[in-house]
Amino acid sequence: MKTLKLILITLLVATVFSCQETTSEESVVSEPVAEIQNDIEKVEPPHWWTGFKNQKLQLLVKHPNIGSAIPKINYSGVSIVEVHKADSPNYLFLDLEISELAKSGQFNIRFQLEDASELIQTYELKSREKPAEDYIGFDSSDAIYLITPDRFANANPKNDEVEGLLQQGIDRTDGYARHGGDLEGITNHLDYIENLGFTAVWPCPVLINDMPSGSYHGYAMTDFYKVDPRFGTLKDYKELANNLRTRDMKLIMDQVANHCGLEHWWMKDLPFKDWVNYQELYEENKDNWDWKTTKTSNHRRTTNQDPYASKNDYLEMADGWFVSSMPDLNQRNPFMANYITQNSIWWIETLGLGGIRQDTYPYPDKAFMSNWAGAIMSEYPNFSIVGEEWSYNPLLIGYWQEGHENIDKYDSNLKSSMDFAMQKNISDALNEEESWDKGLVKMYEGLANDFAYTSPKDIMAFTDNHDMSRVFTQLKGDVVNTKMAMSYLLIMPRIPQIYYGTEILMDDFDNPGDHGLIRTDFPGGWQGDSVNAFTGEGLSDNQKDMQKFLTKMLNYRKTSDAIHDGKTMHFAPQDGVYVMARISDNETVVHIINKNEEEQELELSRFEELGLSGKTLTNIISKETLIWNTSMTLDEKGSTILTTKTQ
Amino acid sequence: MKTLKLILITLLVATVFSCQETTSEESVVSEPVAEIQNDIEKVEPPHWWTGFKNQKLQLLVKHPNIGSAIPKINYSGVSIVEVHKADSPNYLFLDLEISELAKSGQFNIRFQLEDASELIQTYELKSREKPAEDYIGFDSSDAIYLITPDRFANANPKNDEVEGLLQQGIDRTDGYARHGGDLEGITNHLDYIENLGFTAVWPCPVLINDMPSGSYHGYAMTDFYKVDPRFGTLKDYKELANNLRTRDMKLIMDQVANHCGLEHWWMKDLPFKDWVNYQELYEENKDNWDWKTTKTSNHRRTTNQDPYASKNDYLEMADGWFVSSMPDLNQRNPFMANYITQNSIWWIETLGLGGIRQDTYPYPDKAFMSNWAGAIMSEYPNFSIVGEEWSYNPLLIGYWQEGHENIDKYDSNLKSSMDFAMQKNISDALNEEESWDKGLVKMYEGLANDFAYTSPKDIMAFTDNHDMSRVFTQLKGDVVNTKMAMSYLLIMPRIPQIYYGTEILMDDFDNPGDHGLIRTDFPGGWQGDSVNAFTGEGLSDNQKDMQKFLTKMLNYRKTSDAIHDGKTMHFAPQDGVYVMARISDNETVVHIINKNEEEQELELSRFEELGLSGKTLTNIISKETLIWNTSMTLDEKGSTILTTKTQ
Repeated sequence: MKTLKLILITLLVATVFSCQETTSEESVVSEPVAEIQNDIEKVEPPHWWTGFKNQKLQLLVKHPNIGSAIPKINYSGVSIVEVHKADSPNYLFLDLEISELAKSGQFNIRFQLEDASELIQTYELKSREKPAEDYIGFDSSDAIYLITPDRFANANPKNDEVEGLLQQGIDRTDGYARHGGDLEGITNHLDYIENLGFTAVWPCPVLINDMPSGSYHGYAMTDFYKVDPRFGTLKDYKELANNLRTRDMKLIMDQVANHCGLEHWWMKDLPFKDWVNYQELYEENKDNWDWKTTKTSNHRRTTNQDPYASKNDYLEMADGWFVSSMPDLNQRNPFMANYITQNSIWWIETLGLGGIRQDTYPYPDKAFMSNWAGAIMSEYPNFSIVGEEWSYNPLLIGYWQEGHENIDKYDSNLKSSMDFAMQKNISDALNEEESWDKGLVKMYEGLANDFAYTSPKDIMAFTDNHDMSRVFTQLKGDVVNTKMAMSYLLIMPRIPQIYYGTEILMDDFDNPGDHGLIRTDFPGGWQGDSVNAFTGEGLSDNQKDMQKFLTKMLNYRKTSDAIHDGKTMHFAPQDGVYVMARISDNETVVHIINKNEEEQELELSRFEELGLSGKTLTNIISKETLIWNTSMTLDEKGSTILTTKTQ
Repeated sequence: MKTLKLILITLLVATVFSCQETTSEESVVSEPVAEIQNDIEKVEPPHWWTGFKNQKLQLLVKHPNIGSAIPKINYSGVSIVEVHKADSPNYLFLDLEISELAKSGQFNIRFQLEDASELIQTYELKSREKPAEDYIGFDSSDAIYLITPDRFANANPKNDEVEGLLQQGIDRTDGYARHGGDLEGITNHLDYIENLGFTAVWPCPVLINDMPSGSYHGYAMTDFYKVDPRFGTLKDYKELANNLRTRDMKLIMDQVANHCGLEHWWMKDLPFKDWVNYQELYEENKDNWDWKTTKTSNHRRTTNQDPYASKNDYLEMADGWFVSSMPDLNQRNPFMANYITQNSIWWIETLGLGGIRQDTYPYPDKAFMSNWAGAIMSEYPNFSIVGEEWSYNPLLIGYWQEGHENIDKYDSNLKSSMDFAMQKNISDALNEEESWDKGLVKMYEGLANDFAYTSPKDIMAFTDNHDMSRVFTQLKGDVVNTKMAMSYLLIMPRIPQIYYGTEILMDDFDNPGDHGLIRTDFPGGWQGDSVNAFTGEGLSDNQKDMQKFLTKMLNYRKTSDAIHDGKTMHFAPQDGVYVMARISDNETVVHIINKNEEEQELELSRFEELGLSGKTLTNIISKETLIWNTSMTLDEKGSTILTTKTQ
């Protein structure tokens, strides 16, 4: 009886979805899987789940001459809707429909070959572990610790070198070689990160970069479904994710939709003629492929917004390769588009992610990027994605955030964009001598630009990252200026991101801007390190002081409604003093920068609107209290952070 | 019979408008005016018109003890709706309603005093000279010549000194003294201006500045209804307007809603306690009033947009005085608000204006400024107003233009805003050495920002103005760079404004930025000048060349649909060459900047989208023709301007 009902409902579903080809009638009685069969070289995604809103799944199947095979699936609720041949005979793309009737389990995909022989691949549909709504993305209540995994901690020296990979050897004296850091190294030090007060971790990519050189940075992926064995295993990645989750912390995955590594497996047998951009040029020149033969991007990213940009310039930007070792993926090929989107969802579901950071955001096809983020947000309504565009122009930062009223009607579906403008403002503000239009006014007027953003508090701000000089170097080694930068960052209406090692004043003075140097090993991450920042052993007083300062700031921030969601009010800098406040119903946090070398008497009448008159405020760092009255004395240069909350 | 009908209709109108007080019944039969009577010291506006959409008119009446008088009007279609006393006994404000029945003509306003005596003031309603739709404001088909009237031409030396005014004497050796230029001087040289190819003239303010010093610049008005006698008379102003009109050229009036001069007549007897901002402070300190006693603006104009600005900072910006010699008008006083709006309309109607330039735009109360422009645009739907905000931030330029989707829902009702950002971009682009992010890319990316504007072509662009270094000085005396700046300005999608003397490379090298020097006398404007730029006598070859260059550019622009309204396309600068084009159905204009010192071979395949292949193009300057083919040779450094139109 139950079976009959299922038949009827399945038929109904098939009709409603009006598939081009349906195997629903056959699929009603599922064929049992006796043992797992793996005849096929590659099926991606390697598994999937039941219960997504989007019931479509497109499998990439790669196998010698699979293009001429006829695939069959007998599994209740799963039907093959359409089969697509590729340009290469060794690929087949299967459009599956996974109805709400499909139960988790394994089933076989049978490929009938031209010679009537058969290949069988067992495929699995898993149950989803938690409701879609429970994938909560990073937001302004978070503080994110950004890590370059090769350079943070080497928990497992056994995986430093992995046989069979193109780059061998580690060399900690070479900033561009592998140093041996791994996922387990991060997991082992989550106590440290949590105690500092961070609530989210963003490791730079850890998927395999089986490249002959420069593989340590992770942005030249050679398999989008495989963890780099030098960083560990998928199990290690999951362990990091689970360990974070038990601490109520979030894992952010660094993804790359724009390009892969030149050694990506598909580069030897590309499924379509337009799988990557400038593919023909590459095929013709691959034997002497270098920066001279490559059509690289013109990097004129404003062509994404510019109403007057020529199509030629736009395509040179979007389709040109980022560098000659990174083929530029063609997201206008619909199979590539599906591939990327499904890969993102696969990782969200596999790791229970708390967010995605999308690399080189303005370079992939922008229509695709909107669809990609839209597809993800449709499945995970509370998720967060942040796109990286290195621009100091607030117009672009605003353009990329969802809901912005763009003249071209574009909506990115991105909850967050990146605030490089603020990074520069903070740096300039603290480095410059005060004058009418220099110094603190850069922070003040930079923050004033928030009127151009749909949701300023959802924008990610930072003082540095893995691609630019360390904040301590930007600020010329001035510890007090660095503290001012960090406390401002942690109180302003943003999602703050801090690069590992900022807490111990890591720098790149020896060669400012050098990537290898910026991504210096975290002391204590390697056995035998003479300094250990995890334990404090060997740190200078300044370093210890900065660690304490950030720990206090971050831990205060963790439970501060005012900072997470409060109203913002600030006052134009005067006499080298800049006051900014965050205000919620029960809490006011006041951030005061004094750039003068000396003590400064601050008249408080100007700040009457803050409603603090007569109230007792506590200094978040020193725990000293004061009563907000007619005036207060600011210590010599530095930031004063006060709260109305009892500490 | 006709009279009866009128009575009925007038009653009906009165009922519909439900006035607080009405004299409509009495006003039906108009009292004839035997002779003009002028018992009252001041009634403003001094006259008005019939037939406005807005039927309200508020008269400011000033006379000793007029506050206790009862005013009466007997004139068909005109009624006193409300009478307002002021804080000073010497003012009365009358709200009139001028219905569509009111005919042009004169009528008496009778003021019955407390002692039963009567004062009579004859008031006039004129007929409007042309339909409201025919007041066509400046737009992208115009090119505007900006003039500092004291420094352009002295046609009438008799008005150089006027007895009774606070500042006496002229001194052409002193950049901050009066030099004697006048309205007639402009009128007399309209042939010159028209032949250059300009279609609109914007003289800096010519209303009376009866100030003890600095009166030449015009921005410290002491009577908003009176022409400065040193510039001429109202008749002279009208003659300039009429003369321009017969040439189909537009007159733009420079108005100031933010402040007046300290010697404004009302400063001796202010009608209300809040007529000007910080009035109490002024009254208390007027005997030793200087920059130290004045509460001046904090000039933090971003408080207009900043969602986090404190109210204190906003009010310090908006209410603080611009300088101690210019009282800051309080537009939140509704009588002041009416006064300013009516004054603007009075001048539009009196002169048949082709636009208003509003000084120090972000300083007056912003809600009022929106209402002010709204009121004007409601009466003159095709009019144009441009507001001056000196900001390099495109977010502010966009914010001030009508129709922009602002987060705070503010709409300025301004058709045009001012593009200081582009002025800086052009200057930087030409001064800087070419590199990835310097040089021509500043122009290119600056123009790319147009996606942030509601209507880029309605924004006013310029390379300099009366407040900043001359473009020739900005560009370090490089004639070729100056030509490139000017040709770009005249082809880009904007309303171009050019400061008088740019055509003869006027400069301020001797003391860059010095206002007096920037506003140097135009040679030939004074009898006995050894150089005469109007005739060409005594000009250097470079000056003559620049005059010719601008004449050709401006005269081409005058009839170019492509430049006025065409599509824009530009190409990212490469190898020091930047190509920008304007395209209409029948015309393409191509602007090419070559920043290289040498000839440059330009491959044209990259510009295929322009659709010019095989077409004959004419060089606008040299009149030489070429066929657009695979490549073209660019001359050494300079701009090449090509058109598909037969020349």
